[in-house]
Amino acid sequence: MLIECIPNVSEGRRADVVASFADAIRGVTGVRLLDVSSDPSHNRSVLTFVGDASGVEQAVLALFERAVAAIDLRTHTGEHPRLGAVDVVPFVPIEGVTMAECVALAKKVGAAVAERFKVPVYLYEDASANPARRNLEDIRRGEFEGLAAKMASADWTPDYGLPAPHPSAGASVIGARMPLIAYNINLATDRLDVAKKIAAAIRHSSGGFRYVKAAGFKLEDRGIVQVSMNLTNYEKTPIYRVFETVKREAARYGVSILESEIVGLVPSAALAAAAEFYLQIENFKPDQVLENKLRNLKL
Amino acid sequence: MLIECIPNVSEGRRADVVASFADAIRGVTGVRLLDVSSDPSHNRSVLTFVGDASGVEQAVLALFERAVAAIDLRTHTGEHPRLGAVDVVPFVPIEGVTMAECVALAKKVGAAVAERFKVPVYLYEDASANPARRNLEDIRRGEFEGLAAKMASADWTPDYGLPAPHPSAGASVIGARMPLIAYNINLATDRLDVAKKIAAAIRHSSGGFRYVKAAGFKLEDRGIVQVSMNLTNYEKTPIYRVFETVKREAARYGVSILESEIVGLVPSAALAAAAEFYLQIENFKPDQVLENKLRNLKL
Repeated sequence: MLIECIPNVSEGRRADVVASFADAIRGVTGVRLLDVSSDPSHNRSVLTFVGDASGVEQAVLALFERAVAAIDLRTHTGEHPRLGAVDVVPFVPIEGVTMAECVALAKKVGAAVAERFKVPVYLYEDASANPARRNLEDIRRGEFEGLAAKMASADWTPDYGLPAPHPSAGASVIGARMPLIAYNINLATDRLDVAKKIAAAIRHSSGGFRYVKAAGFKLEDRGIVQVSMNLTNYEKTPIYRVFETVKREAARYGVSILESEIVGLVPSAALAAAAEFYLQIENFKPDQVLENKLRNLKL
Repeated sequence: MLIECIPNVSEGRRADVVASFADAIRGVTGVRLLDVSSDPSHNRSVLTFVGDASGVEQAVLALFERAVAAIDLRTHTGEHPRLGAVDVVPFVPIEGVTMAECVALAKKVGAAVAERFKVPVYLYEDASANPARRNLEDIRRGEFEGLAAKMASADWTPDYGLPAPHPSAGASVIGARMPLIAYNINLATDRLDVAKKIAAAIRHSSGGFRYVKAAGFKLEDRGIVQVSMNLTNYEKTPIYRVFETVKREAARYGVSILESEIVGLVPSAALAAAAEFYLQIENFKPDQVLENKLRNLKL
């Protein structure tokens, strides 16, 4: 069983503090820390690790212990919106584990965080039963500075803990979600209006695909524009469907696709689905992928 | 390091004998037996296993020990062409190992087989330095029955061992090759001539792609035809290029592609390459595939 966990913490400037967070995670048996990246202007770090349910649970609690002690939101500044010391903790099913099990884990960890560290917790994404509280952006609106007032309203009672922020550590958002694919399509034009119109056409918020977030940007140095996307569920809104739709929408303006790019990691199954679509492969099973077959044998 | 090894042995009727071959492989530490399939009409079995260089070397020698003792080519009958008791042994680089290392392994094992079991060995595919002796079909032409005469010619001196067959075990062909992909494309027509013309257009032997073997068949029960292929190097002749070429050739006859199918296993990288092509993904690196990243961390 393999679960990915990607906590975002509100510290991106003090390298020694971030290193101590990484050490806390590395110290847990059965957990592998994959990546740590800090952004000083955001004053925020993202830690990526994998493990089984018990391992990632322990690692998150070890991280909370150090982060709650080391970070004070009352003096924290940075460009990125944030609500708490450990701002967001998503659990992502990778292999041999269901979304339901990741949801159960998010709830278990959420309850433990509120109990042990007196940090109130909101559940989000698949772990949230309340549609108005699924989106991270909605939960985080108002940030740490507006949190006391927000929590006092009945709509924003936390899922775990008392309805008041931890004085220095604020609140945390914990949940479960599918792996996210950061996917950009570059257009052979400098017309920002075309990128923006296409982004609007494909993103969920304005009538597009359910699991697409998108915006249009200018790549100044290259003199082209980009449709920048997050694909939040590649099983239900596959990459190839997004690509083909962008291509058709662009053609309407006489614009062609220059290239696309995947930023960071992508599950093998998301690429296999694109190959299956374009090659019209029928009756393909995941264990026909050599690496899947080998991996399953080792379990 | 992971090497796949797929020995073909000249026994497909005596289940107990084949089982003892499988046991010999299973008994080697660090080796995993993935599959055993026997064909009684071919009187031949294919054993598939993976492991590191030292493990697969030991497993092949353990297999030779039992197969040379149990199989007598002088009384062997079967539809499939064969030269020896252990007929063919390919080593295939899967992960963390180069083709050059698989070639070195083939030579080491070839020398050991000739030395220990007095079975002469021909190197083939990437392990062969002689273009006239790269193809298995060329080496095997004349079969066991013609072997003594063939070996007496200067062109067919074995790479290891004396230039005379082992009395009962013949000779063995050992080498290194890329993973092979069995790939079929079904056409929306019952015209066998179209499938045969397309097969001729794409296969290496009649002027097509270097790493494609192809033939046209009728699928009687479905009333359609199939271009059946082996892709012998998916890095140099990728699946998508073959698919697109078949599609264009078929269009010439007013025929469209019904579907394609991958038979058995396919390396994840072969599917990723198709996704990269169709989605026009630039600057993609193998360790952006989540599973690759995780696997590499575990090594």
